[in-house]
Amino acid sequence: MTLMARLPRIMLCGDLVWAHDEVKHLFHGIADVVNMDSPNRADFLKGLKPGGKYDGTVGIYRHNISADRIGVFDKEIITALAATGTVKWIAHNGAGYDQIDVLECANRGIRVSNTPGAVNDATATTALYLVISCLRHFSMAERSLRAGTWKTPISSGRSHDLTGRTLGILGLGGIGLRLAHLVHAFPMRVIYHSRHKVRNAPEWCEYVGSMEGLLKQSDVLSVHAPLRADTVHLVGEKEIRTMKRGSIIINTARGKVIDEGALIRALEDGHLSSVGLDVYPDEPNVNPRLLAFPQNALLPHMGTETQDSQREMEVRALTNLRDFLLEGRGKDLVPEMRK
Amino acid sequence: MTLMARLPRIMLCGDLVWAHDEVKHLFHGIADVVNMDSPNRADFLKGLKPGGKYDGTVGIYRHNISADRIGVFDKEIITALAATGTVKWIAHNGAGYDQIDVLECANRGIRVSNTPGAVNDATATTALYLVISCLRHFSMAERSLRAGTWKTPISSGRSHDLTGRTLGILGLGGIGLRLAHLVHAFPMRVIYHSRHKVRNAPEWCEYVGSMEGLLKQSDVLSVHAPLRADTVHLVGEKEIRTMKRGSIIINTARGKVIDEGALIRALEDGHLSSVGLDVYPDEPNVNPRLLAFPQNALLPHMGTETQDSQREMEVRALTNLRDFLLEGRGKDLVPEMRK
Repeated sequence: MTLMARLPRIMLCGDLVWAHDEVKHLFHGIADVVNMDSPNRADFLKGLKPGGKYDGTVGIYRHNISADRIGVFDKEIITALAATGTVKWIAHNGAGYDQIDVLECANRGIRVSNTPGAVNDATATTALYLVISCLRHFSMAERSLRAGTWKTPISSGRSHDLTGRTLGILGLGGIGLRLAHLVHAFPMRVIYHSRHKVRNAPEWCEYVGSMEGLLKQSDVLSVHAPLRADTVHLVGEKEIRTMKRGSIIINTARGKVIDEGALIRALEDGHLSSVGLDVYPDEPNVNPRLLAFPQNALLPHMGTETQDSQREMEVRALTNLRDFLLEGRGKDLVPEMRK
Repeated sequence: MTLMARLPRIMLCGDLVWAHDEVKHLFHGIADVVNMDSPNRADFLKGLKPGGKYDGTVGIYRHNISADRIGVFDKEIITALAATGTVKWIAHNGAGYDQIDVLECANRGIRVSNTPGAVNDATATTALYLVISCLRHFSMAERSLRAGTWKTPISSGRSHDLTGRTLGILGLGGIGLRLAHLVHAFPMRVIYHSRHKVRNAPEWCEYVGSMEGLLKQSDVLSVHAPLRADTVHLVGEKEIRTMKRGSIIINTARGKVIDEGALIRALEDGHLSSVGLDVYPDEPNVNPRLLAFPQNALLPHMGTETQDSQREMEVRALTNLRDFLLEGRGKDLVPEMRK
């Protein structure tokens, strides 16, 4: 009879699509892997109890897809994870981690990492696509062709080049900065507003100290603020009306950062000429009033939907979990926990 | 009674949308302007005769829209223009001048200018949009959202980032070069094939001496060759089959440069994963078989449909006409006539 040291246990909460081999490689000899296979929240909570199927878990890989079965990581789930006494790290797959109650985690001694960087390229490309589509009326043109009317409803008088127009970036994190570089190729004039001036921003990327100033100068506003309690409806009625008549708003961040009612009112009276959206307040539901404006470009949250970035995000989340096991800490601890 | 020197006469053949003031300004004291108002070809040809309403015309501003009434500038029209003995310059509005029989013009002593440069930005932006849409499946995703199925038919496994993939540019003129700069922001690897190596191409834009070599290496092929007798079906069955399985073809040049039948066969058997088209062999008719592939991104010839570029093109064509009047020659004489 051989005595084997028991390995720590990690849980995959949400399926891995691309990084199966990496899981074996990254955790070989370091951790045992258990799949979260609960069909509902009650089963999940039961599994966390002593002797349950998830007993002994120290770290969790989490993907938003798991919310379909057990819901978001709210206070109830965080409380149950803390009660195990063993779970100390949640490695979330994604840049946005608004489905995790981070404050509760902090209070209970569970740390959270996300996957910044991995999503920058794919999400900024999505924003660029929406900028082009809204300025050039391409979404409407594609539908016009497929409806058999060639370009009949399109007027070049309302279509504009990107070159020379002003893009306002609200929140110059990794995604916003990446978008700045992409549109600089035209070039568009790029201005941004963040809580603080960004040190590594290039010289041509101009900091505007007030949100009002950003809104007043922008032909196109692209939103890149994370969803937090204090960013809900960050762009509301007052902010939209501060923009020039005929402006365009792009959102690839989170739907709730914009007041959708105010957005639709501004489309209805022509204050906004169009919006390019990849995110919505109540996904996968889309407010049907948004569809009534043919000039809008509306994507179903495709920001990171590429094989390349999905794989990169999975590996990055798993690497955070591995670093936690080996070094006590993953590199991508979320900003709120870095104080 | 005052004796006034009679001014030379120019004809506007196709409406000006944006440059009305520029016409007055550019030709004030230099030429009289007559509008081509013929409802059909017979009336147009009659007007060119001695004593006709277009008699005395020395130069013509031409837009493709005039073909709706009098047809393209084929041998019959060029012969009639030459027979006036006065018409010596056709200032075409557009980069492509395949609607003008340039050989016949050359034989008859009529020179032709186009508007290169003015279209580069808008057309290259259109190509970039189609590249993004095909690699990311955005056209399909937009239709999926508007059909109420969110992203159900989309698989991120077949979607790809631009970054790191190889774009092959067939024809590195102004538009191709502009596209090269736009995708270099990602960066994509950029390779090109033209009849000759382009001297002002940047170092990272690699010349491939054979078309076969270009096709074999490209993940995405973007066509930027002008339509001439020798470029009809430049991309045919053999060329498409030389590309890797799962490749993408983008065309913002002219429909007939690609063999549409071969293109559709390659979509049907999956050799091409998708195509992004702004141009078709028989516009405004679109082969309905192209619509059968949901992953295709199909625009109704929107390449230069922006207020900015339309205006720039009109002014550039008119400036060629003015330079012809004042200096005997417009700057943008078409390449065939520069020998």
